Amino acid sequence: MELTFIVTESIHSSNQKVLGLNPSYNQSTKGDDFTLANKERLNGHLNHMSTFTATPGEGMTRYSYSPEDVKTRNYIKEKMQEYGLTVREDGLGNIFGKLAGTSSDAPSVLIGSHFDSVPHGGHFDGIAGVIAGLEVAALFQEQKLKPTYPLEVIAMIEEEGSRFGGGVMGSLGINGLISEKDFHAIRDQDEISVVEAMKQAGLDPTLPKYRNPNTMKAFLELHIEQGPILEEENITIGVVDKIVGLTQFEVTVQGKAGHAGTTPMDRRSDALIAASTIITDLPKLAIDEGNGTVITVGKLNVYPNGANVIPEQVVFTIDLRTGEEASMKRVMKKIKTVIQSHQEKDIKVSIEQQLYMKPKSLSEDVRSLFTDTAKKLGIPSIPMVSGAGHDAMVFADFTKAGMIFIPSKDGMSHCPEEYSDTDHLSQGVDILFESVKLLTKTH
Amino acid sequence: MELTFIVTESIHSSNQKVLGLNPSYNQSTKGDDFTLANKERLNGHLNHMSTFTATPGEGMTRYSYSPEDVKTRNYIKEKMQEYGLTVREDGLGNIFGKLAGTSSDAPSVLIGSHFDSVPHGGHFDGIAGVIAGLEVAALFQEQKLKPTYPLEVIAMIEEEGSRFGGGVMGSLGINGLISEKDFHAIRDQDEISVVEAMKQAGLDPTLPKYRNPNTMKAFLELHIEQGPILEEENITIGVVDKIVGLTQFEVTVQGKAGHAGTTPMDRRSDALIAASTIITDLPKLAIDEGNGTVITVGKLNVYPNGANVIPEQVVFTIDLRTGEEASMKRVMKKIKTVIQSHQEKDIKVSIEQQLYMKPKSLSEDVRSLFTDTAKKLGIPSIPMVSGAGHDAMVFADFTKAGMIFIPSKDGMSHCPEEYSDTDHLSQGVDILFESVKLLTKTH
Repeated sequence: MELTFIVTESIHSSNQKVLGLNPSYNQSTKGDDFTLANKERLNGHLNHMSTFTATPGEGMTRYSYSPEDVKTRNYIKEKMQEYGLTVREDGLGNIFGKLAGTSSDAPSVLIGSHFDSVPHGGHFDGIAGVIAGLEVAALFQEQKLKPTYPLEVIAMIEEEGSRFGGGVMGSLGINGLISEKDFHAIRDQDEISVVEAMKQAGLDPTLPKYRNPNTMKAFLELHIEQGPILEEENITIGVVDKIVGLTQFEVTVQGKAGHAGTTPMDRRSDALIAASTIITDLPKLAIDEGNGTVITVGKLNVYPNGANVIPEQVVFTIDLRTGEEASMKRVMKKIKTVIQSHQEKDIKVSIEQQLYMKPKSLSEDVRSLFTDTAKKLGIPSIPMVSGAGHDAMVFADFTKAGMIFIPSKDGMSHCPEEYSDTDHLSQGVDILFESVKLLTKTH
Repeated sequence: MELTFIVTESIHSSNQKVLGLNPSYNQSTKGDDFTLANKERLNGHLNHMSTFTATPGEGMTRYSYSPEDVKTRNYIKEKMQEYGLTVREDGLGNIFGKLAGTSSDAPSVLIGSHFDSVPHGGHFDGIAGVIAGLEVAALFQEQKLKPTYPLEVIAMIEEEGSRFGGGVMGSLGINGLISEKDFHAIRDQDEISVVEAMKQAGLDPTLPKYRNPNTMKAFLELHIEQGPILEEENITIGVVDKIVGLTQFEVTVQGKAGHAGTTPMDRRSDALIAASTIITDLPKLAIDEGNGTVITVGKLNVYPNGANVIPEQVVFTIDLRTGEEASMKRVMKKIKTVIQSHQEKDIKVSIEQQLYMKPKSLSEDVRSLFTDTAKKLGIPSIPMVSGAGHDAMVFADFTKAGMIFIPSKDGMSHCPEEYSDTDHLSQGVDILFESVKLLTKTH
């Protein structure tokens, strides 16, 4: 993603962090890394939950409703209770820890992220945002704060889609975008349904999933960037203004198998040659479109995949992401043209769209709040476009949704090497804490 | 393979099959399809062994030492015994069924082929030649023939290399071309060694593998053509004069993984884009060289192979075949140049040669014998170049090796649609039978 960003005023003040706006920040005595958020507590959560993986020593593998999910879930619920929150789970296994507001029946400010992972992923994607939510609750408790609007810390399932495909299942369910019929049909690759998997994990799939948007005042999410921009620009916080649109296709190239030794070159219908030609044509479409458009062929399988057999069939994915819907449509059309141009007498190419999500703008109010808060706290921030999908984009249609990013070391994510600094995480928490205080009208 | 062939005299006599040289052939009473070989028996073998597949309904998948190998092996051994042969297996699991000769210690005439298959292959490649060997033995038994030189029916493992890579492992072992050290190092893609796999199949890897060339008088193999020439020319038998040279490479393209949404196009080191560019450059090298040169990329694997992850590594095979050694060397050099031209800062490409076999001429004596016999039997034949490698090319360095081809329907092979006619198979058997009688000095 070629991320476009505007340097905000706060960057220029990054060397003069103490603006006197928050007496807790005092560079002269505490140094750069002093924050309200308790780094020891944050590290404790990170270290503890990093052990709840199905692949110890080989990154984080935490599938929804797995034994690792249950261990993590129990830890999160325990900590929510410790910080004075009232815990409940919904019919998808999403966890909510609520600090009641002084105004009865007022909508909640939700803060959190997901706690599932990709296979062999990192120890930050998702869980860092849940930990940020827990820490905000801990700060409320420590400071004996009484919000007018309720605060709800939220930990969601299956954002990655690693077990049940598609992704953002937790937020889709909360926002009423999964019908009961669809819910009962969802199965993992071992044909285990969500219902069975939940029961095995001791969860109750009959509990309500949907919550009325009237019960939500805002949804705030902290996440790692998963890209290199913040680190390279030496900026602590990215305030997400937009999440790119995403579409995924599956392309099937059907040729004709044949013996590698006995089929003359001019009698071949080689599916891999045709697929390779298509694949080499794709990057140019993204580069020509510009504006951060990216195209990826990440998955490709050859059939029958024998060294001495001319490939009969190749199936591959195309993942297209871009910030503007017009770009999306333009590039999709070009992809189809490229693919059609490779149809020949004995080469048939078909394309199936498997996912389409429009680019999504996040709440302008929350963005301003984050940016202003960062500035007040003397924490450098920039607006960013998110190249990855997040639960926040689902909430954006139903409530004021906002996201902040913290830097990812070397831009790495979805791998065991994924790493974010606790200093950055704690500064992110401070921004959330101050923003939540304002949103919940805590005095 | 652009097969060059010369029309032999026998073609012109294809409409006058009864030449009075063999009283069994009598077109006027038995019609075109009468042969010495028993078609019912041939079909019985074909049908029975076609059920020994790991992929029923989806072609023949018979890996060496698999449960399907064991079933096929048992059937072959049973039939060998039924036809009066003395059965033994060697330290690779190759099967030999011997009919002793009247002259003690005389070298054997070997006749047979391999019984392994490619994944989702056909029901003829390999096994047709084993069945031809069995049928020759059955005819010897029926006619109570006593050869001077022993006749040995041979059924070999792992010609395709589908389990352990490379191919022709059975004949390499027999001819002393696999050292004990190498033998112990060979592993399949699940890291199971040949030794372990053999033991699991109830075979004894400590038995001798090598046989002294002095124990072999000739090696004869019937195989399906796997190409379209015989069918198109309406010729029943191809007498192979040369087997093309074959080399196989494994190419590894190492890029850098990254998130499909958050990594800008200009920061990617996408292993699949690099691999695709190399692959699309290869066919031209074969076409430019001409003379039947063929290049195939049949096997390709992407890692980690996730729709939303930029490919970190792609591993693929290159299979190059051509009739002249000079062509071979010229094209190999060009392949390396193409690959090196795709080395970049963050894309590392390495190439490993896994197999190199020079073009191989088969025994002139055996070729003449086959051609003369075909002519005597009134069966149309032509000389052919084999575009595929075969066990016969390994034997060619150690004994008089000869091969005949029978037509493949639509030239298809290594696919479930592979088909050869029993009429053609039985005519091939007749040529082998008459040739073996001469070679073994059976009176």
